[in-house]
Amino acid sequence: MKTLIDHGLLLTVDNGKIIPDGSVIIDDGVISYVGESVQDKTGFDRYIDARGGIVMPGLINTHTHSPMTLLRGCGNDLALDEWLNHHIFPLEDKLDDEAVYYGTLLGCAEVIASGTTAFADMYFFSESSAKAVLEAGIKANISRCVTGTHNDYKKRLSEARQLFKDYHGAGKGLLKIEHSAHAVYTCSREAIRAVAEAAQEDGTGIHIHLSETMKENRDCYSKNGKSPTEIMRDLGVFNVRTNAAHCVYLSENDMDILKRYDVSVAHNPTSNLKLASGVANIKEMLEKDINVSIGTDGAASNNALDMFAEMKLSGLLHKGMRLDPKLIPAQTALEMATVKGAKALGREKETGMLKAGLRADIIILDADAPCMIPVNDPVSAVVYASAGGQVVTSIINGRIVMENRELKTLDIEKIKFGIMQARKRMGL
Amino acid sequence: MKTLIDHGLLLTVDNGKIIPDGSVIIDDGVISYVGESVQDKTGFDRYIDARGGIVMPGLINTHTHSPMTLLRGCGNDLALDEWLNHHIFPLEDKLDDEAVYYGTLLGCAEVIASGTTAFADMYFFSESSAKAVLEAGIKANISRCVTGTHNDYKKRLSEARQLFKDYHGAGKGLLKIEHSAHAVYTCSREAIRAVAEAAQEDGTGIHIHLSETMKENRDCYSKNGKSPTEIMRDLGVFNVRTNAAHCVYLSENDMDILKRYDVSVAHNPTSNLKLASGVANIKEMLEKDINVSIGTDGAASNNALDMFAEMKLSGLLHKGMRLDPKLIPAQTALEMATVKGAKALGREKETGMLKAGLRADIIILDADAPCMIPVNDPVSAVVYASAGGQVVTSIINGRIVMENRELKTLDIEKIKFGIMQARKRMGL
Repeated sequence: MKTLIDHGLLLTVDNGKIIPDGSVIIDDGVISYVGESVQDKTGFDRYIDARGGIVMPGLINTHTHSPMTLLRGCGNDLALDEWLNHHIFPLEDKLDDEAVYYGTLLGCAEVIASGTTAFADMYFFSESSAKAVLEAGIKANISRCVTGTHNDYKKRLSEARQLFKDYHGAGKGLLKIEHSAHAVYTCSREAIRAVAEAAQEDGTGIHIHLSETMKENRDCYSKNGKSPTEIMRDLGVFNVRTNAAHCVYLSENDMDILKRYDVSVAHNPTSNLKLASGVANIKEMLEKDINVSIGTDGAASNNALDMFAEMKLSGLLHKGMRLDPKLIPAQTALEMATVKGAKALGREKETGMLKAGLRADIIILDADAPCMIPVNDPVSAVVYASAGGQVVTSIINGRIVMENRELKTLDIEKIKFGIMQARKRMGL
Repeated sequence: MKTLIDHGLLLTVDNGKIIPDGSVIIDDGVISYVGESVQDKTGFDRYIDARGGIVMPGLINTHTHSPMTLLRGCGNDLALDEWLNHHIFPLEDKLDDEAVYYGTLLGCAEVIASGTTAFADMYFFSESSAKAVLEAGIKANISRCVTGTHNDYKKRLSEARQLFKDYHGAGKGLLKIEHSAHAVYTCSREAIRAVAEAAQEDGTGIHIHLSETMKENRDCYSKNGKSPTEIMRDLGVFNVRTNAAHCVYLSENDMDILKRYDVSVAHNPTSNLKLASGVANIKEMLEKDINVSIGTDGAASNNALDMFAEMKLSGLLHKGMRLDPKLIPAQTALEMATVKGAKALGREKETGMLKAGLRADIIILDADAPCMIPVNDPVSAVVYASAGGQVVTSIINGRIVMENRELKTLDIEKIKFGIMQARKRMGL
């Protein structure tokens, strides 16, 4: 199967290279050419006319809980503590396999429609999520989230390990299974250490929440005399590829630890603002050359999963907070949402750029929409002027999953019905 | 002409009233009924099926410079000073009537497509803007921006007064012409006083920039020993309805002055972040019961004109900055973007709610889009989960200006061509 995407404005994210009128050739799911529009347009099985469009790598959402679409709009304008303990956790107790399946499908529909081609998902009933992701045809790093003290984490970890055995690498690599220790405030040390050991044995990564709130840090210091980052390091988490979400309250020493162990940080600006957690010190992390990517968090604390909105906010927020308009220029925000996300997911040899040899994870934006005209500077147009709604076509591993805004792998009416039934069972 | 909008979820913004399955009846451009879905569906000239949609008042953008769509993406990641003086002002010197006409048309296309039904526009070549607004069929408060020292403001003010004579109330009230003194750092005291007197004589409002940056305040204090707010008050600006944009650096005394004179504040969070101006103290302004509305600013400092994005950011930003998740709850953000905007524009008896007696400025959102499912709480769905792209239909003064995402009054291909020609003349 050979596809030609032709006459698009190519935003490659490969060393900032932009090609005003270019072609991308996809050969059995792999990008084989990125360059000027080709003269010979014969010998292709499929031709995609990208005139008036911006062709770019799909965005990578490095921290979400996709089944939480089920809980979108539950418990607004509350602090993390109250929100989690009085709204989210009681509802999550009522979830079941089918609810999570439909919740994940809905999350996949939303992220595909808004230009995401890979995401890192941490939740439970994870086999249902894995099935939904394979059905959607999107890439995901899924982890069965481990929480608990003493021995009650063990069942969760054994589910996680079974999930790894059953689904790691499934869908020709669409799925990666990782392990996850939720956070220092929800896991015993024993549980965290066991998760770290499991990841090392399975040769996979770890996804954690880290220093999301001031309270988390304060409690951790007063209990252990150490920061959450130090605890995670001491328990061996960082010995494998780690994707640490939030990182709002890191000391300079914490940042040095993350850099030393090559831990990736998933910046979640919307969720951190909405739950009033605060604003992460992304400036300092970038100065220390930490790999900072971007996540939306779950739909209950955002309340959308639009990585374009998240990329824009990542570009804006720190400028205004630090009174420095040159902080996180558009190109940096774009890289955080693409190549740096790929690295966070251990997929840097596979995705994140338009580049020959990488898998074809490609989106096309309508640059003829009023909000995009005129495209004076394509990077600025994509980061500051566009939103997920501008995405018209999405290709993952060479397969078209959305074309002219129509989802090709998912049936939204079926998903809506499944969500409605699940919410009824949950008493919503 | 009698229209029935039927079976929509009505978000009235009228004392927070929500009707899950409602009707809105429009009689010659005026809302005559808002309530439960009517039984008798006969006798209407037009029937709009709003099933699966959220029906709400159009959003009101209280601070923009719509022709700056021409300069979208020019000069990114720069401070206000450098951005204005080295990028924007030199380009603006090359503008002409036709460029501003097309720039305004493009701005109108973008804001209609994203759910705005009225906006406050401050720029120059304003007759061209007035013509474009009438063609688009949108509501706008237009002001010919006055700047200058000594006598060189006079030509600008006389243009502004002519504009008032020629266009105030045009299009059956679509247009209001206001006066505008750009800011304390671009106008002499004489110019500001003259603008204030003109507004009083014409019986109209004033649109200004106020305390946008720390530098503006510092320079003003060191030159005058007073704040920009005190200067504006002393020169008589606040004796008429005033819409003050930005207000990032207000003292408590400044806020008390604004409250005393019933000055409206246009909060522009995206622009203030992007230009690294800072974050306005909206918490304190709301506590003092100042009328705070929301604006996008121009497309060169945002770079979109999406009021849904701006409303969401207004709801999020202050929570995270002040570490208080209850600050500016969704309902407050919604009111800032609707009723409070109407008041800022002197249109509170005309628009901003779904309410019998008001003009029909109504939008319909697709609540079946993946990012909106499930609508657990309609206010939260609209403020936190949706973006301008969810708007499918827009009605202004009872006239359909967009239907199923198709612009009915504007031809985007013609606009694109005009923009391209204008940019060529400007050397872009």
